[in-house]
Amino acid sequence: MNIGVLGTGMVGQTISAKLSELGHDVMIGTRDVATTLARTEPHPYGFPPFGVWHQEHAQVKLGSLAEAAAYGDMLINATNGVGSLQALELAGESNLNGKILIDIANPLDFSQGMPPALSVCNTDSIGEQIQRAYPDVKVVKTLNTVTAFLMVNPAQVGDADHTLFVCGNDEAAKAQVTGWLKGWFGWKDVIDLGDITNARGTEMLLPIWVRLFGVLKTGMFNFKVVQ
Amino acid sequence: MNIGVLGTGMVGQTISAKLSELGHDVMIGTRDVATTLARTEPHPYGFPPFGVWHQEHAQVKLGSLAEAAAYGDMLINATNGVGSLQALELAGESNLNGKILIDIANPLDFSQGMPPALSVCNTDSIGEQIQRAYPDVKVVKTLNTVTAFLMVNPAQVGDADHTLFVCGNDEAAKAQVTGWLKGWFGWKDVIDLGDITNARGTEMLLPIWVRLFGVLKTGMFNFKVVQ
Repeated sequence: MNIGVLGTGMVGQTISAKLSELGHDVMIGTRDVATTLARTEPHPYGFPPFGVWHQEHAQVKLGSLAEAAAYGDMLINATNGVGSLQALELAGESNLNGKILIDIANPLDFSQGMPPALSVCNTDSIGEQIQRAYPDVKVVKTLNTVTAFLMVNPAQVGDADHTLFVCGNDEAAKAQVTGWLKGWFGWKDVIDLGDITNARGTEMLLPIWVRLFGVLKTGMFNFKVVQ
Repeated sequence: MNIGVLGTGMVGQTISAKLSELGHDVMIGTRDVATTLARTEPHPYGFPPFGVWHQEHAQVKLGSLAEAAAYGDMLINATNGVGSLQALELAGESNLNGKILIDIANPLDFSQGMPPALSVCNTDSIGEQIQRAYPDVKVVKTLNTVTAFLMVNPAQVGDADHTLFVCGNDEAAKAQVTGWLKGWFGWKDVIDLGDITNARGTEMLLPIWVRLFGVLKTGMFNFKVVQ
């Protein structure tokens, strides 16, 4: 399948590499290709700059947000939630319409320092804002409650015995995405929370997630719903 | 130990009954004793009105919020978060000062219908508001992420193999409360998130909790942090 991944950060890189490894044709999209490739500073957690990563994953095509959106039969929003609406505007509505958009974004606002606040929450969410702005896009919110490495390989902790949430308004799109999560990445326990308003609940998990990251000194953990 | 429980709802009842069963001397406090006893309508989930419950738990003393606060060497805030600050004002600062206050309240605002929004979140929380209003009270936020029956008997699901969070500014108080959670109720996995600002994170779990309650058709579940 042709897949367009919007966002070249750790999430975009990790997802693109995995999807490409699975045999999909992936284009990763960024605001400005030249600027992204020219970056030399490593990621705060020690990951290499994008250009170095891209040399090692040359099979992943690189393009503008609009090019990646046009390329993909299915799209993934891996941009920072604070900038997602602007990124999707650059991607272009006509390149998005009719497609499934897996929305992984979280509205983490680091502008006031740590811990980050959410730029939207409680009575709204990034997932809902995207769905309202693009009513003909099939937004499925998922994967935003785990760190990038776990998204594509949940078996890295607890033998994948932990929970992922999906929500969205289009039942067929949700079923399709749930099948991909299980088949491509190995998720076992996927709970459908209902319509896209439930993105509030999953995005509002981030404050405790960020704190647990500090306490546990690793992002390699997840929540399991125990009954 | 003499324990004062503020709030006569399901949480207050369940905690009071368990503590009394464990041999503690418990007084449960309400805004107006006569009104509380006069209630005849059953709880929306079918539990009996307070007076019926109290007849079956006559060893639990009943008093005003101020009487219960004065009675307890340790206090539990089991009021609805939206009304907690007002309830504590009625309890009286001099009856609270110097004591551990286990804060279970969640700022669930049902006034706009379902699902409830939070009346405070993101950059503040009920736990923090209480600690700021009463700097000489040792506020320990915990138990607010599970349903009342699980609070006092976590083994009812998954052999108690799931996680409870505590946070607060007073290290000794947190250690004491953690000991009680394990010794009295049987909690096994208690994670200390840090200072009281982490109440934001645990209170912000409520939106997804409420939704999971709807999807799973039971409140008898909890999150386990899997590493």
